[in-house]
Amino acid sequence: IIVFDEECFQGRRHEFTSECTNVMELGFETVRSLRVESGAWVGYEHASFQGQQFVLERGEYPQCDAFGGSNAYHIERLTSFRPIACANHRECRMTIFERENFLARKGELSDDYPSLQAMGWCNNEVGSLKVQSGAFVCYQYPGYRGYQYIMECDRHCGEYKHFKEFGSHCQTRLIQSIRRIQQ
Amino acid sequence: IIVFDEECFQGRRHEFTSECTNVMELGFETVRSLRVESGAWVGYEHASFQGQQFVLERGEYPQCDAFGGSNAYHIERLTSFRPIACANHRECRMTIFERENFLARKGELSDDYPSLQAMGWCNNEVGSLKVQSGAFVCYQYPGYRGYQYIMECDRHCGEYKHFKEFGSHCQTRLIQSIRRIQQ
Repeated sequence: IIVFDEECFQGRRHEFTSECTNVMELGFETVRSLRVESGAWVGYEHASFQGQQFVLERGEYPQCDAFGGSNAYHIERLTSFRPIACANHRECRMTIFERENFLARKGELSDDYPSLQAMGWCNNEVGSLKVQSGAFVCYQYPGYRGYQYIMECDRHCGEYKHFKEFGSHCQTRLIQSIRRIQQ
Repeated sequence: IIVFDEECFQGRRHEFTSECTNVMELGFETVRSLRVESGAWVGYEHASFQGQQFVLERGEYPQCDAFGGSNAYHIERLTSFRPIACANHRECRMTIFERENFLARKGELSDDYPSLQAMGWCNNEVGSLKVQSGAFVCYQYPGYRGYQYIMECDRHCGEYKHFKEFGSHCQTRLIQSIRRIQQ
């Protein structure tokens, strides 16, 4: 991943092949554009992998609105990054549960679902989930919109038993679309 | 589709089963929340299917940021709607071309591609495209972000030979992710 402190790949530049806990330590004030040359990465709003998270796949992100989400609360910066190691799994498998602690109705996922309701999930919420293999990104709204939560089989042992474990910025159980992260 | 003139499914309400060219004619000032109960729809910023376009799949959109995109230019309204008739195709097939008028290198698509570059397309642009069956949504940036362009086999005979035909709001050939629209 190559990051720049100005829009359109201008200004100070730095290339990473592994995680970076704080771009400010490299003399950056912020990151305003970036290019992913290989792999799949997560970018975080704050240092040490805190705040809003954004999946970053191969391609060009010339300004903040290119990596940001569609939330009312727009971010203007990325401060830390890491590669998604388990995005190289050929097969992605996940179980979603209606309630916390892996309780109530469940659904097995191994594909991309722009609308969980269209695939038969009778709810706009997910209470907890287990990732058996690979990595997924969950979104608040249908069509891959709103806050993003990156879920990996090799973090938390793949277990996310309460919405507070979905991400440090997660405040509700609202999840309406889910897709695999591949590279 | 059921639309509301206030956030969180409050205020004046109207249900549609076919296209609506202008919600203002029904006494709405704007649409601030909506629920898609069946099918796949497109919502437009302006009347008569003009301006930014947004794919709307089954689920709940409690406020404008839920259906809007991640663009710097945020919309606060939807004014017209129509169902995507050909989203009921079982198979979606599309050919993308590097240049206008179906020229230069081409790629055949029949799946979802959060990064066209990761699947081997050596460019961040698409010059023209043909939809053989079904419907797709193309996005400016990787990971289904940025402006959306809805492409259907039964509109324009499925042929989009210049970026100006991608949508009335389209100003560049930048397309970095594409996915099928199903229902």
